[in-house]
Parts: sequence; structure tokens; C-alpha cells
Amino acid sequence: MRGTVLYGERDVRFEDLAEPAIIEPTDAIISLPVTCICGSDLWPYRGIQAIRRPVPMGHEYCGIVEEVGRGVTSVKPGQFVIGSFFASDNTCPHCRHGYQTSCQQREPVVGAQAPRMRVPLADGTLVATRDVPDPEMIPSLLALSDVMGTGWFAADAANVKPGATVVVVGDGAVGLLGVLSAKQMGAERIIAMSRHESRQKLAREFGASDIVADRGDEGVERIKQLTNGVGADSVLECVGTQESMLQAIKATRPGGSVGYVGVPHGVSLDGQQLFFSHVRLHGGPAPVRKYLPKLIDLVFNGTINPGKVFDLVLPLAQVAEGYRAMDERRAIKTLLQP
Amino acid sequence: MRGTVLYGERDVRFEDLAEPAIIEPTDAIISLPVTCICGSDLWPYRGIQAIRRPVPMGHEYCGIVEEVGRGVTSVKPGQFVIGSFFASDNTCPHCRHGYQTSCQQREPVVGAQAPRMRVPLADGTLVATRDVPDPEMIPSLLALSDVMGTGWFAADAANVKPGATVVVVGDGAVGLLGVLSAKQMGAERIIAMSRHESRQKLAREFGASDIVADRGDEGVERIKQLTNGVGADSVLECVGTQESMLQAIKATRPGGSVGYVGVPHGVSLDGQQLFFSHVRLHGGPAPVRKYLPKLIDLVFNGTINPGKVFDLVLPLAQVAEGYRAMDERRAIKTLLQP
Repeated sequence: MRGTVLYGERDVRFEDLAEPAIIEPTDAIISLPVTCICGSDLWPYRGIQAIRRPVPMGHEYCGIVEEVGRGVTSVKPGQFVIGSFFASDNTCPHCRHGYQTSCQQREPVVGAQAPRMRVPLADGTLVATRDVPDPEMIPSLLALSDVMGTGWFAADAANVKPGATVVVVGDGAVGLLGVLSAKQMGAERIIAMSRHESRQKLAREFGASDIVADRGDEGVERIKQLTNGVGADSVLECVGTQESMLQAIKATRPGGSVGYVGVPHGVSLDGQQLFFSHVRLHGGPAPVRKYLPKLIDLVFNGTINPGKVFDLVLPLAQVAEGYRAMDERRAIKTLLQP
Repeated sequence: MRGTVLYGERDVRFEDLAEPAIIEPTDAIISLPVTCICGSDLWPYRGIQAIRRPVPMGHEYCGIVEEVGRGVTSVKPGQFVIGSFFASDNTCPHCRHGYQTSCQQREPVVGAQAPRMRVPLADGTLVATRDVPDPEMIPSLLALSDVMGTGWFAADAANVKPGATVVVVGDGAVGLLGVLSAKQMGAERIIAMSRHESRQKLAREFGASDIVADRGDEGVERIKQLTNGVGADSVLECVGTQESMLQAIKATRPGGSVGYVGVPHGVSLDGQQLFFSHVRLHGGPAPVRKYLPKLIDLVFNGTINPGKVFDLVLPLAQVAEGYRAMDERRAIKTLLQP
């Protein structure tokens, strides 16, 4: 088969690869009707996160089980399944506490920008849908694998409650789906920070009540004005830079919460500043596995349609153009068709 | 009257001061049957926190109201009252959310190492007890003003729940009272980190089930051994150094919580390390005012006796020796008698 490999900064290749195969008895092989590119793929693509050797790309996936190892009991060939970007056993103490992305057997899932892939720890990682979904539902199910689950975790980690005033920092797919998540959790006011018209539009469609285009201290000042000088109850940090993190912390009222899901790059927090801010801070790699059953239901019953974040569709063979479009912010998120 | 003034590093003087007087109509003057020295007083005493001019010391207080400004309506002369180290109006949005130490009118309270003092924003700051307490109860009530309220906030911020496994980093008065707080909140296992015999003894008396004398990474390793490799549900950080903060974060299980109340000095947190730790972080200056009514009840009905942290009693005139004893860790906490 042909799949996607990153060789170095802005060097994405679509090339011949070995067919995925069962290695451990707990593995599954799934075929992917569609696949996609993640905002976090841009860190190594841009050279900000160094890679030592060529790496198969893609960690968001859903599709049909083709084959399972002899130890797999909970999913079977022919089922439609969705999994998270970290494989987990779903039985260790961390998993039982709902932190499957800190599973004691945690294993990154790779190679999803291809027609087929291997998923380790299939029993713990994969969740089967009740039926094989209609094709038009598949982009939304694919979004659950990472960006929707991550936006949901951001809102959960930020303790979004009914009636809350919420700020979302970051207008990538995760930020936009953070808006959708906050809306689902009953937030009354949702302020999206964005300066891109198409993203502002989708943010409003997902439930944003206000848009703030200012950034940094001006952005914080604007949030303070909008909240009578108090700050927000919950702030979702969906970027991962020093500026976005400080923006999130400063926009939060004392006793309010920051849920941060942007993988931090060059972020350093001053202890005393954090102390006197009185904010709650929680985040990390989203335990998507925990949320999958609920989010699958919300997609199947038509309550949410997170697949709307895909605003560019390309044949998988044009994956390099998909990266370029996201890198240049011409696309929010690229859907790829094998 | 004579009171305590810090002139510079290790230069504490007991000297003639003006009698405190009503300045604002919201002020109260209270007389102090006893007073004390706080662990946080040692930061400026040791020169770690620079002072620009001589400062009147002391921020923990309880006593009899002598006089109130014409705007004060909720406390009156003759009542026994307790307040927090930050004065607050108890009506602003931050106060209503339970973060009185971030009150929009917040004002530090100073000059409590003296026979009498002025308390600003008396209506919002002071809580009167139902009766004038017996003398033997007064040290425990004095402890509520800061160290007990702060230990309670540490446990609250660390989400201590019934049945939890809790670690307490720091064996000063706040850490020890953090042990007591965790016990009150129903923690099943409380691991106190201490290498001082007298403090270990008091920790056990307050409810510690285990003592760990190791520090830093060895201390973390020991906690992991004691928790089957999982880490603690809740960790109370009651020191404020880089080492203690990292020790707290690393001792916490993914999804567990660190409540930090040691004023950070030289603490800097790496964003990515925090992200992958999956811990919840909350802390800051303890909103003691919020907890005072409950804690006063617990002292009056004999449930808790936080005054046990006072292991040195001196006449107020010997305040300098009180500082020396705490600086040299000969005393946990010094009670001073005017």
C-alpha cells in the first residue's frame, strides 16, 4: 500500500509501505474509509519538534476491522470502530481513573494517513459503533478520534458548568470543537478568540456568543471588559504557546479553571504568578477513550456534527498539499480519501 | 504600645509604635490576647524576599474588638473575632465565588505582632465567635487565622475525598495542619514527608498513617512504592520551593490533584512536563475567610485542636528569639504573649 511519511521539515512523502500486520496478539488491523491531518502534525512538519528518522504520520482513525490478533475479544472483523491516538489497555489504575492517555501500557498509534493501519491493544483502545455508519456521518466519527475528544477534554478540564462564561483560546479544529463542547455542557456565554473570518463563522455556528480578535494582553483586556472586570469561569487553551497559555491564565477569574490541551512548546510558568492568579490548571493529552461512547452517541443521534471542521477534502495521494494548506492556514483541517 | 518591626535580614526589633487608630470608617481596632510568628514571615526575615523599608510584622490574629469605625455594622466592641491575613469586603464577585484573598478591595493586614492592631474592611474580614472563648481555646482559634485555614485550603484545592490517598509535602505548621485537614475530609491514607522527629510525631497525632523521610526523586520513588506504582490522589504542597513543587507533582497520579499553598519562591514549571503529568494544579493565598465559620465550629466543639502546632511560648518582648527558633527549626511555631 502507499502511505504518508514525514522525512523532515516540510518534507511529507506519499510512498510505498509494507502492509500493516498483526504483531502482538492484542493488535487489530483496520481499513480506513477516510483519514486526516491533525494540527499537532504541524509541530514536526514545521521542524519545531525534531524527528530523528522518517516517521509514518497520522494518529486519527476510524474504520472497519479487517483482522484481529488471537488475544482480541471485544471487537471483531466487519465492525466499525474508533480509537484514540494513544492505545491503552483500559484496565490499569490510570485507565480506571479515566486517564487512558496515561495508561501504564500506553503506546502511540501511528500510520493512520494510509488506507490501512495496525492498532495495538485493540480491546482497550477501540470502541465499536452499534451499526456501520452512513458515509456522511464518517467525518464526524473520525473527528472523535482526536480533535473532538480533545476539545471535550479541554472543556471538561476547565470545569465548564451550565450557565458558565467560557473563553476559548485557539481557533484550530480543537478550539472550534472546544466551543461546541462548552455549548453541549451548557455554557451560557462562549467567547471565541479568533481573527480568521471563516473560523469565526464556524465558531458562531458551534455556539460562540462573542468573538474577540485581539491577542495577548489586549485580548485579556477585552475579555475583562466583556465580563465586568471579573474574568471567565472557564478558559480552554487550545494552542500550546507561551503567549496563549498566559492569555488563558490571565483571562480566568480567581477560582476559575484553565483546561489546556495544546501540546506546550516552549511554555514555562512562573510559580508566583500562577499562585496569585488563583486559577485551577488541568490538561494534558486528552483521554479520548473515556469520552468515545458518549460522543459516538451524540454523533449517531445527530446532536453534534464535529465533521464540519473539515473544510478541505483531498485524495490521500495529495497529502503533502493537505499539510501545506493547514500550515498556511488556508484550511482548518484536511480530510483525506484513500 | 510596643510592637514588632523587621528592619532587614534577621533584624527584628520590638519597639515603640503609635497606637493603632481607626483610619477608614470600615476599620476595627482589636486587642490581641496572644499573637504568633508565621512560616511565611521567614521569607523576608531570611532576606529571600526583599523589603524596601522597615515593616510592622504579623498577619495572624484573633481578639476582642475595642473600637469600630462608623461604617461597621456586623461586629461590635466586646466581641471575640478572627480574621484572615488579607482583608476582604466579602461582597465582590471574587469573594462571592469563595476567593476572598483575591477580593477586588483586597488589603494586606499587618502589625499583628503587637498588643493591638487595626483591621481594615472589618465587616467583610472579621468573623465573631458565638461566645468569648476560654483561654485554652485561643491558640487554636489563632491558628485558624492563617495556618489552619491554609492547610484546609491545601486539602480542598487538592480535592481530598473520603478514602483518598494523600501526600503532604512540608512539615511546617501548614503541612501538619494539612494532615489534620485531610483527616477531617476523610482521607484513608495520609503520607507525611518529614525528617524531623517532633514533627513526625505531631503529624501522626493529626492523622498521618505513614512517614516518608526521603526527599526529591528518592521521596517520589518511595511514594510510588507505597502506592503500588500509581501515585497519590491528592498532594498538598506546603513549602514553595522548586524542589517541593516538583516533588508534589511527581508524587501525584495522572488525574490526581496538587493543592499548593507554599508561597512560590524561584518556582518555574515546564509546560510540557506539567502537560504529560496529567495533574490538576490549584493553589494560591488561602481564602481563609470562607472557611472560618466552619473551622470555628470545629474548634468550639472540640473536633480539632490546631493550636498544638505552637511548641514554643514566649513573651511578645522576646519576639526576636521566636524568629530565631523558627529559622533554626528549633520550633514549629512560636506563640507570643503581649
